[in-house]
Amino acid sequence: MYNHSIHPNQRLRVSEPLTLYEVQDGIATLTLNSPARRNALSSEMLEEMLAAIRLSEDDPAARVLIIAAAGPVFSSGHDLRELSQGSRESQTLVFALCTKVMEAIRLLRKPVIASVQGLATAAGCQLVATCDLAVASEDAEFATPGVDIGVFCTTPSVALGRAVPTKVAMQMLLTGEPISAQDALKAGLVNRVAPSAELGRATRDLARKLASAPASAVAMGKTAFYAQAALDRPQAYSLAQRVMVENLQHPDGREGVSAFLEKRPPRWIS
Amino acid sequence: MYNHSIHPNQRLRVSEPLTLYEVQDGIATLTLNSPARRNALSSEMLEEMLAAIRLSEDDPAARVLIIAAAGPVFSSGHDLRELSQGSRESQTLVFALCTKVMEAIRLLRKPVIASVQGLATAAGCQLVATCDLAVASEDAEFATPGVDIGVFCTTPSVALGRAVPTKVAMQMLLTGEPISAQDALKAGLVNRVAPSAELGRATRDLARKLASAPASAVAMGKTAFYAQAALDRPQAYSLAQRVMVENLQHPDGREGVSAFLEKRPPRWIS
Amino acid sequence: MYNHSIHPNQRLRVSEPLTLYEVQDGIATLTLNSPARRNALSSEMLEEMLAAIRLSEDDPAARVLIIAAAGPVFSSGHDLRELSQGSRESQTLVFALCTKVMEAIRLLRKPVIASVQGLATAAGCQLVATCDLAVASEDAEFATPGVDIGVFCTTPSVALGRAVPTKVAMQMLLTGEPISAQDALKAGLVNRVAPSAELGRATRDLARKLASAPASAVAMGKTAFYAQAALDRPQAYSLAQRVMVENLQHPDGREGVSAFLEKRPPRWIS
Repeated sequence: MYNHSIHPNQRLRVSEPLTLYEVQDGIATLTLNSPARRNALSSEMLEEMLAAIRLSEDDPAARVLIIAAAGPVFSSGHDLRELSQGSRESQTLVFALCTKVMEAIRLLRKPVIASVQGLATAAGCQLVATCDLAVASEDAEFATPGVDIGVFCTTPSVALGRAVPTKVAMQMLLTGEPISAQDALKAGLVNRVAPSAELGRATRDLARKLASAPASAVAMGKTAFYAQAALDRPQAYSLAQRVMVENLQHPDGREGVSAFLEKRPPRWIS
Repeated sequence: MYNHSIHPNQRLRVSEPLTLYEVQDGIATLTLNSPARRNALSSEMLEEMLAAIRLSEDDPAARVLIIAAAGPVFSSGHDLRELSQGSRESQTLVFALCTKVMEAIRLLRKPVIASVQGLATAAGCQLVATCDLAVASEDAEFATPGVDIGVFCTTPSVALGRAVPTKVAMQMLLTGEPISAQDALKAGLVNRVAPSAELGRATRDLARKLASAPASAVAMGKTAFYAQAALDRPQAYSLAQRVMVENLQHPDGREGVSAFLEKRPPRWIS
Repeated sequence: MYNHSIHPNQRLRVSEPLTLYEVQDGIATLTLNSPARRNALSSEMLEEMLAAIRLSEDDPAARVLIIAAAGPVFSSGHDLRELSQGSRESQTLVFALCTKVMEAIRLLRKPVIASVQGLATAAGCQLVATCDLAVASEDAEFATPGVDIGVFCTTPSVALGRAVPTKVAMQMLLTGEPISAQDALKAGLVNRVAPSAELGRATRDLARKLASAPASAVAMGKTAFYAQAALDRPQAYSLAQRVMVENLQHPDGREGVSAFLEKRPPRWIS
């Protein structure tokens, strides 16, 4: 399926990598590749994810990042064995690292699409909520089932509560029960639902569309979108106006508007 | 239907109580019991509700609180006769008391489920929007019809505007027209719609699921969810990470994770 | 279709006006009337819109404002020819003016309804997101396609991101692809979808309902709704409580409550 596969920090590791990373046709794909462990987000997995996100940041050939998963489960969330054996200090480090990954996705100046089959639970569900866009297989399910093991999904709730209506988030958090791909679509947790056999293709179709836009505009726009969302409306407009002018003054902005007015295809420099 | 019924502040009253309160199988139920007055939220009603919420807070046997209503109307909102006869000062006290009830629901360290049949209007609709979860009878309707009597539903809009999309809230507030249970479900105002005859059972099924989780995790998680929602994302994660570690270090968190890893049922202490 | 048409600042202009403005039966209608330019939001168009909004503010006969459009396209957004020819300074002025129009709609103490047929794109979509309510023709489409011309729809994203779930906004912004009227309804971007031939009537029916409420209550309520939404919940309640008392003490509030209790129709003074 992939042309080649580069492990993000292969110098540092001797064991089998937990992730795959490849770039093809402008689309970087980070694949969680620990199906036997249900793609648990262990510290090692999180470190590899962070390294891959940073690789994609620095690689001009990567215009969009897909986060996909091998095996029947997208991700079951944190590695409970690791957490159960850890001290308060080591647990604190695991959650800090997980937040670092989530924030790296939000701060990445390129769009990130989750491609989800099977189950996305706890921090796995948080990962889907955090990505800019998400495509789900029709059989996918989403849950924050921490209450079942006495540990409320509080860190996942930060991302979930910002993606779906409050009562939908509370239902998932308090019951721990999964919602279907269709209900996730209705709630705003995913953007598209594809037949199981079509998940990869549907995700790449979406990624290809995103990759066709100039990287400059996408970077400015994504960054500004999340920045303005945290401000009150007048401040948000103030920021947005400044970004619009920068974007219009950028060579790609000038080229895009000119091409449109001259009814010709644009030639992007980024 | 209920085993027993305790009035929350029966020492203070000689008249017929406006609410019923009972606890059974871990589930506390506060029933608005003034059907002839359409369960109007008079000061007396609000005081009784507050007393019942506080009773449930202090009662370890109450793991979940259901707010239900007797009669064909869930609640028609404030008592207009009381408000119309009041001075500016007494009106101020009524709204302060109502806010106190709404905030007590949000701050209660136990989940609160509204169980709604018939009409939930004005402050009655605010009450539904405020509860953590809501189950509606298929014939239930939700409205903020203050404009029809020249008094915009401004205090209800605080809760409604945080539960549903802005334009849905504005439509309800500006037209005063009711939305159906199905539309309330789509908008995120309720979580489930049940056939009329099944409302009580559907609510109790949901409550029973919630009551099965350890009280410690639910308390920490509910409190953290609303606290983090008011913060910007980095601060929200900072708070959430601290709560996750506390939760994992709690005896119930330790037990839950151990039981999961040992593939045995957990034994909660809370 | 309209009885008469007054151009808002006709003293200042000699050319054909870009907008029509008329008031009938309590309903003001501002019609974008530059169909040959796809109702582009040029500086001239924006100035006329601002003038019309201010006319409606000062006109007691205008109880509701409809923003409609002539021709097959509601609005294609900014005038790209104007923007492309402008300096950084003049572009800054265009965006500041556009924000002024959007904020004038939000701050207008009367409800504003968008009536949308055909395409509403970029700042045209922002306009729909900004209005208090929106009615769409079943064939209407909504898009923020700036990425296609290298200029991310950042200022539109301020309004869009506050109207629909985050992932829906990001999908529209990153793909540039249109969503249908039905999807706009599901996402909360519009309130009603009408058959194409019925758009005007459906919008006027909604406007008529809004116009029947006393202007005092609507003004207090709309203003308070957006003000409280920017505050944290306790502050929001504090503001809302004060507004409720003012509203109850207003002659229309007193009259409305009295009429309701006396089971007679109210006589509004505003």
